[in-house]
Amino acid sequence: MSIESDVTARAKAAKDASRHLALASTRVKNEALAQMARALEEKTAAILDANRSDLERARTGGFTRAFIDRLTLTETRVADMATGLRQIAALPDPVGEVVETWRRPSGVEISRVRVPLGVVGFIYESRPNVTADAAALCLKAGNAVLLRGGSEAIESNTMLAQLLGKAAEKAGVPADAIQCVDTTDRAAVGAMLRLDRYLDLIIPRGGEELVRFVAERASVPVLKHDKGVCHVYVDDGADVAVAVAIAVNAKAQRVSVCNSAETLLVHQAIAERFLAAAAPRFAEAGVELRGDERTRALVPAAKPATDADWDTEYLDYILAVRVVADLDEAIAHIARHGTGLAEAIVTSDLHRARRFTREVDAAAVLVNASTRLVDGSQFGMGAEMGISTSKLHARGPVGVRELTTTKFVVLGDGHLRE
Amino acid sequence: MSIESDVTARAKAAKDASRHLALASTRVKNEALAQMARALEEKTAAILDANRSDLERARTGGFTRAFIDRLTLTETRVADMATGLRQIAALPDPVGEVVETWRRPSGVEISRVRVPLGVVGFIYESRPNVTADAAALCLKAGNAVLLRGGSEAIESNTMLAQLLGKAAEKAGVPADAIQCVDTTDRAAVGAMLRLDRYLDLIIPRGGEELVRFVAERASVPVLKHDKGVCHVYVDDGADVAVAVAIAVNAKAQRVSVCNSAETLLVHQAIAERFLAAAAPRFAEAGVELRGDERTRALVPAAKPATDADWDTEYLDYILAVRVVADLDEAIAHIARHGTGLAEAIVTSDLHRARRFTREVDAAAVLVNASTRLVDGSQFGMGAEMGISTSKLHARGPVGVRELTTTKFVVLGDGHLRE
Repeated sequence: MSIESDVTARAKAAKDASRHLALASTRVKNEALAQMARALEEKTAAILDANRSDLERARTGGFTRAFIDRLTLTETRVADMATGLRQIAALPDPVGEVVETWRRPSGVEISRVRVPLGVVGFIYESRPNVTADAAALCLKAGNAVLLRGGSEAIESNTMLAQLLGKAAEKAGVPADAIQCVDTTDRAAVGAMLRLDRYLDLIIPRGGEELVRFVAERASVPVLKHDKGVCHVYVDDGADVAVAVAIAVNAKAQRVSVCNSAETLLVHQAIAERFLAAAAPRFAEAGVELRGDERTRALVPAAKPATDADWDTEYLDYILAVRVVADLDEAIAHIARHGTGLAEAIVTSDLHRARRFTREVDAAAVLVNASTRLVDGSQFGMGAEMGISTSKLHARGPVGVRELTTTKFVVLGDGHLRE
Repeated sequence: MSIESDVTARAKAAKDASRHLALASTRVKNEALAQMARALEEKTAAILDANRSDLERARTGGFTRAFIDRLTLTETRVADMATGLRQIAALPDPVGEVVETWRRPSGVEISRVRVPLGVVGFIYESRPNVTADAAALCLKAGNAVLLRGGSEAIESNTMLAQLLGKAAEKAGVPADAIQCVDTTDRAAVGAMLRLDRYLDLIIPRGGEELVRFVAERASVPVLKHDKGVCHVYVDDGADVAVAVAIAVNAKAQRVSVCNSAETLLVHQAIAERFLAAAAPRFAEAGVELRGDERTRALVPAAKPATDADWDTEYLDYILAVRVVADLDEAIAHIARHGTGLAEAIVTSDLHRARRFTREVDAAAVLVNASTRLVDGSQFGMGAEMGISTSKLHARGPVGVRELTTTKFVVLGDGHLRE
C-alpha cells in the first residue's frame, strides 16, 4: 500500500471510530482512560523494549545528549504517563456542556452545546510521553486521533498507540480511535495535510519549520503551536528584587520550552540599578547575555547583540537584552519581534500595567509574573496538547475543552421563518 | 504596481490601522458607524451612479434577471444599508468582555478577555449591500477589513468602501481600516490567501468552488461559509400539518440561501399521509419534486431522483425526496450527504428528538422548526457575515462576537514558576 493510501485508510478508520466515540458517555471514556493507564503499567517491559530500539538508532545518529534524554523512557517515566492518564480521567468532561441557552420572542429555544471536533491530527516531535497525553486528551474530549510523532521515536510511539487503542477497546471505545502513522517517511505528513475529508483539525507542535510547513500546505484547519520569542519588560520604578527574580525565572527555570523568555527589555531610568543586580544572578544561572550598546556600557561582560538576536528563539541559556527609552518603545519592540505567545511587564505603575495588557497582542500578557506560568497545568486547566499561537478557536494553552466545538440545538413547536 | 504588491500594500495598511482600531473605545466605534450611515444617505446619488456602471456591464454579460436584481442598488436599498449600520452600532461591543476569571492557589489572577482578531479578509460575491454590513461588523469588533467582492460589483464596492472609510475617519478611526481590492483580476484573491503576515482570518462566502479554492490554498486561517445541503426529516408520528408547514417553509420561503432545505426524508410509516398532504402544497409553491422509487409510487408527478440529487445544493424551486425505513436510515443519509449546516427533524417523540440532536453532526440541529431559522438575526445575534460550516472558532452564524478572539491577562505579585 502506498504511504498516501495507508494514511488515508487510517484517517478514515479514525473518522468512523469518532462517530461512536462522540456519543460515548463520560463513564465509558473514563473507564477507557483507566484501562489505558493500567495497560501502560502492565506492558512497561514491552514499551521499554520498543524504546530501546529507538535509542539504539538514535545513538548511532549523532544526536545530542539532551535529545537522547528526552527520547528515553524508564519505568518511572512510564509510571508518570499512567498517572497523567488518570489525571485526565479526573478532569470534567466538556462534551454536552450547555454553553448558553436563550429563548426568542417567538418561543423558539436555542442552546449552544459543546460537542467533540471529530478527528484530530497531531504532528509532534521526539518525546514519546506526549503520545499518551495526546491520545488521552483527545479521547476525553470525544475525539479520535491520528498521531504522527518524530521519526526517532517511531518504535515507541507505534507500540504505545497500539497498546492504548487495545486498552480503550476493553471499555467499549473503538480501538481505531487511536491511530498512529507507523512510517518515518515524510510523505505521510504531506498526506495528512490534505485529508480534510476525514481530519477536522491538525495540531503541529514542534520547531518553527514544521509549523510553517504545515500551515502553508494544509487544507485541514490548523491550530499552530509556534515558536515563542517571549519578552520581559522591566519598567521604570519596578521593584528591582521582584524584577530580577521574574527575569531569571522566565529565562532559566527551563530553557527548552516555548514560554521561556528570550529577550529582556529594560527602561533606561532603571537600567543601571536593575542590570547591576541582575547580571550576577544570570551569571550564576549560567545565562549568557547579548546586549545592545547601552546594555554593554552597563554590563561589559555581555556580548554584542546583532539584529538577528531580537528574533531568535534560543531555547538555551542565552538572553538578549535591550535598554529602551520608555513603555512605548518596549511595546513597539514586542509588536515587531514578539511571536504572540507570552509577554510580561514588571511594574508598580497601574496605568502602565493597564496599557501593557491592553496594547500588547499575545495569547497571554502578564503583570509581575513569569512567562513560565503560561501553560495548562499552571493555569489550572489540566494537561495540554501545547500552547496555541493561533488567534482562531483556541489561543494559549490547549486542553480538553479546546479540543471541542459547539453546535446549536433549536427547539420549536412548528416554528417557521416569516 | 503589480496586483500582488498592491494587495500586500492594502493588507499592510489595514494591519497598521487595526492596531489603532483595536484600542478604540465603544463610543468612537459607534460614532464611526453613525458617520458611515450618514455618508450612505448623503452620497446616495454617487453610489447609484457607480452601481449603474456595474449594471451596464452586467446587462451585456448575459446574466440572469435574478442576478441583476441582486446587483441592483436603489434609494430604498441604500437607505436599508444605512439602517443596518445603525443596528450594528446598537449591538453590544464584545471587545473587553471578561469571558472568565479565576484565581490560582498561588494567588495569581487569570482572566480571559475578548479582543479583536486584527484584520479580516472577506471574499464574497455579487450583492453590494454585503459590503456595508461586512465593513460595519468588522469595525464594531475592532477589526480592519480587506474586502474583495465579486467582479460584477467592482464599481459599487470600491465606491462604498472609500466612502465608508472616509466617514469612519471623521470619528477618529483610521480610514485604512476599511480597504477594498479594486481590481477584478483573480490574482488578487490568490495574493490575499498567502498574506498571513497581515491577515488574521479569511472568510470566503459564496459558491462551493470559491470556498474550496480558498480553503485549499490559504495559509491564512479560513472560516468557511460552505454550501448547505440541508435536510428535513419527517418522523413517524409527526403532526402532518406541522411537518408540511415546516417542509414548505424550509424549501420555499427563500430558495437562494444556504439554510434552505434541499432534501426531504420521510419515514415510511407516515410517507403516504404526509406526501398526500405535502405534494399539493409544494406544487402551489412552484417546487419541483425529485423522488426515489418509493416517493414516486406515492407521488407519480415527481421526477426520478438520481444519485447526484442527494448531494446537490439546488438554490432553486427543486426538492429531492426520499422515503427511509427509520430514524437510523435518516441519520445515516444526513451523515453521508449533509454539509453540516442545518438539519431538522419533525417529530412528536422525545427519545427520537434527543437522538437526532445528539447524533446529527451540524452547525445547527432543529426539532420542529424550519432550517430557515438558522441565521444571526433569527437567533437574535444581530447582523452576520454569514453562516460558518467550519468546526473551528465559530460554527453557525458569524456575528460581531465571532469576529473576536481572546487573550489571557495574568496578574501576579512577583509570581514565579517553581
